[in-house]
Amino acid sequence: VEAKVVWKERMTFSGMADTGFELPLGADPSVGGDSDGFRPVELFAIGLGGCTAMDVISILRKKRQDITAFEVQVHADRAEEHPKVFTHVVVEYYLTGHNVDEKALVRAIELSSTRYCPAQGMLKQVVPIELVYHIYEDEGEGKSSLVVSGEYTPAEASV
Amino acid sequence: VEAKVVWKERMTFSGMADTGFELPLGADPSVGGDSDGFRPVELFAIGLGGCTAMDVISILRKKRQDITAFEVQVHADRAEEHPKVFTHVVVEYYLTGHNVDEKALVRAIELSSTRYCPAQGMLKQVVPIELVYHIYEDEGEGKSSLVVSGEYTPAEASV
Repeated sequence: VEAKVVWKERMTFSGMADTGFELPLGADPSVGGDSDGFRPVELFAIGLGGCTAMDVISILRKKRQDITAFEVQVHADRAEEHPKVFTHVVVEYYLTGHNVDEKALVRAIELSSTRYCPAQGMLKQVVPIELVYHIYEDEGEGKSSLVVSGEYTPAEASV
Repeated sequence: VEAKVVWKERMTFSGMADTGFELPLGADPSVGGDSDGFRPVELFAIGLGGCTAMDVISILRKKRQDITAFEVQVHADRAEEHPKVFTHVVVEYYLTGHNVDEKALVRAIELSSTRYCPAQGMLKQVVPIELVYHIYEDEGEGKSSLVVSGEYTPAEASV
């Protein structure tokens, strides 16, 4: 992985990766910034969510699940003291589709957590990560209803 | 920290943070993606670079250093086996200015590494991070010359 951040002015940077994409980085006014870009730690949260989301959608599509919408939210608590590392992370999977198999989803979350997701592979060594899921039935016309919620924990590893 | 990733199609997601910014996430064609966004692990590299870059520029400006250009590169090696975590990271600071004080830069890098940067605070627990710097003298008209290169290691902690 090759990436760089280039200083623009004050606390404003541009972040670039070798794949060619670019994003704005900024800081909070409380530390002299202008709120003009992602906070660096937000990129950790998005990286974590994106990594496991890609694993899960990839596995569920291989399992021929009919997914119509999918979102992963990441909530990270941080220490009050510097360096204000994450102290607790909750990853919430919101999956909408037709007759989605809960066991298939739990298995996908498990495989991402234990085998495939590098972001989880690194972060789970330093912070507890809770994995929560919600399955919604797509009822058409933009409507959906919650079918089941649950949590994947290592104890359920062989679901 | 609150963030989410929303599925668009195939392996394409949109990443959003509570501060209101949005970025594209994509995957490599080798895993069914369309190379249409950042790879999730790239966000870890940019988050790490952005976090320490902000610390360093903030500290150097407080020390009245005259900085004209600044870039931080992050090179991360990854394991060949899943989950392909980072195995070695090099952070390179490229600082250009007028008579920049090397000790001030080393001290800024040290403070970021040991006290302020949450990305380093988390990642350095799971992967060795090498911190290398290069100071250039700004000679005007877009020209600059290398003054000194060095590496910050914990052994130099009291420079």
